[in-house]
Amino acid sequence: MTGEPTIGDVFGEMIRDAYAVTTGIGPRPLVGGRLPRPVIEIIERDDGLVNGAPAEHYLDPPQRWQPYDHRAVDRVRGQVLDIGVGAGRIALDLQDRGVPVTGLDTSVGALRVSRHRGVRDLVLGTVDEHVADGRRYDTFLLLGNNLGLFEGRERAPALLAALAALARPGAQVIAHGTDPYGTTDPVHTGYHELNRRRGRLGGQLRLRLRYRLLGTEWFDYLVCSVEEFAELVHGSPWRLVDVDDQDHPYYLATLRLA
Amino acid sequence: MTGEPTIGDVFGEMIRDAYAVTTGIGPRPLVGGRLPRPVIEIIERDDGLVNGAPAEHYLDPPQRWQPYDHRAVDRVRGQVLDIGVGAGRIALDLQDRGVPVTGLDTSVGALRVSRHRGVRDLVLGTVDEHVADGRRYDTFLLLGNNLGLFEGRERAPALLAALAALARPGAQVIAHGTDPYGTTDPVHTGYHELNRRRGRLGGQLRLRLRYRLLGTEWFDYLVCSVEEFAELVHGSPWRLVDVDDQDHPYYLATLRLA
Repeated sequence: MTGEPTIGDVFGEMIRDAYAVTTGIGPRPLVGGRLPRPVIEIIERDDGLVNGAPAEHYLDPPQRWQPYDHRAVDRVRGQVLDIGVGAGRIALDLQDRGVPVTGLDTSVGALRVSRHRGVRDLVLGTVDEHVADGRRYDTFLLLGNNLGLFEGRERAPALLAALAALARPGAQVIAHGTDPYGTTDPVHTGYHELNRRRGRLGGQLRLRLRYRLLGTEWFDYLVCSVEEFAELVHGSPWRLVDVDDQDHPYYLATLRLA
Repeated sequence: MTGEPTIGDVFGEMIRDAYAVTTGIGPRPLVGGRLPRPVIEIIERDDGLVNGAPAEHYLDPPQRWQPYDHRAVDRVRGQVLDIGVGAGRIALDLQDRGVPVTGLDTSVGALRVSRHRGVRDLVLGTVDEHVADGRRYDTFLLLGNNLGLFEGRERAPALLAALAALARPGAQVIAHGTDPYGTTDPVHTGYHELNRRRGRLGGQLRLRLRYRLLGTEWFDYLVCSVEEFAELVHGSPWRLVDVDDQDHPYYLATLRLA
């Protein structure tokens, strides 16, 4: 008994339970076999940091979104790929507006919830895998902090290339990021320093998610400044054409196919 | 980088932050250096299970208590030792009623918050350590599920003996427990089975707490049926004289010095 999790669809199980708690559809997690248990997303960082956060925001209707999410969806045009569709909160709103949207996710459980909530066009897989499907898009959404999927200097070029391979002429990427360097908390500034010493970007987080008995493998997730992101994009098929940082430290970066 | 926590005062750090979030006293944990972060208690079990739960209930005023907590404090008499005083929610209420109460805890951080909230008589240490202080009590409270401190067959006799050594004639113990065996969730029923196979009580949980960079050592915490608890008490200086299970699966067990 080491306390180690079993590798599995952490995000899917969590979203299924959050959906059950929010809607009453499906068995809800219980405390003491009786009281409903709030669904908490647990994130471990490789320096031993652990954080928990209520998961219900993944199901939020537009009235409870942050302002930058509204500004992001106002920017879409043409055929949209919602990367990391999750529980479908963004895709559902786009559908309601008559925007053609495809939801992509690597979590079977998340896709099941998205389907149940009414998202019509869903694909299981990574961005790279989706290239072979032959479908092409005008707008790629990386919301819910999913600029993080660029991971760091090693992964970013490949993801930018895969997005270009999926792109129609003039396509755009709208990515939501967070500048991590405003904090004075030594728990974070110390981690940023450690990362730089080991040749990584300061906010190149090494994480795993856990939910109940399940855990993910450790993966990189990028939290970076606009300047760092600009440097990752430099030399790729994409140009950084706009940064909306009205809600600093959060920002929306828009890329256009060069 | 193994993702392993640093051993420290997990509960104290968590309570300090929950107090800051609730009252605005002291620096609050933030998301992205800006938005307040809810304080979540994270509990790992040795089979890899992890659970998160909002920590604010440790600060709850009586209006937000569960009914069994009210019934427990209605039973106290004489000099009270509140074992695991935590953020002081029970001790503060007793003080307000004019009941003489001492709060005992192993967490320096929790005692600091209890002090700040106005608990006057606080002792740092374990029940066993407190025996040497020479103070004696009429009522021992083990609320907030702290019947768990009996741990299992190995620890229970020593804790019952230490309580007896601290007791005045006719003293009582009021312990809040939870019967874990009503669940049909295989995550829990499987763990109970595993525990029995390795010679432990079914609900003898092997846990550690985590908060931010800190973790506790692994420790046993007992969640058991009334029958199992009765068996642990049998042969000790105490008699199980009453069980209040109005809020099943939660119960209040009252012991009296034999």
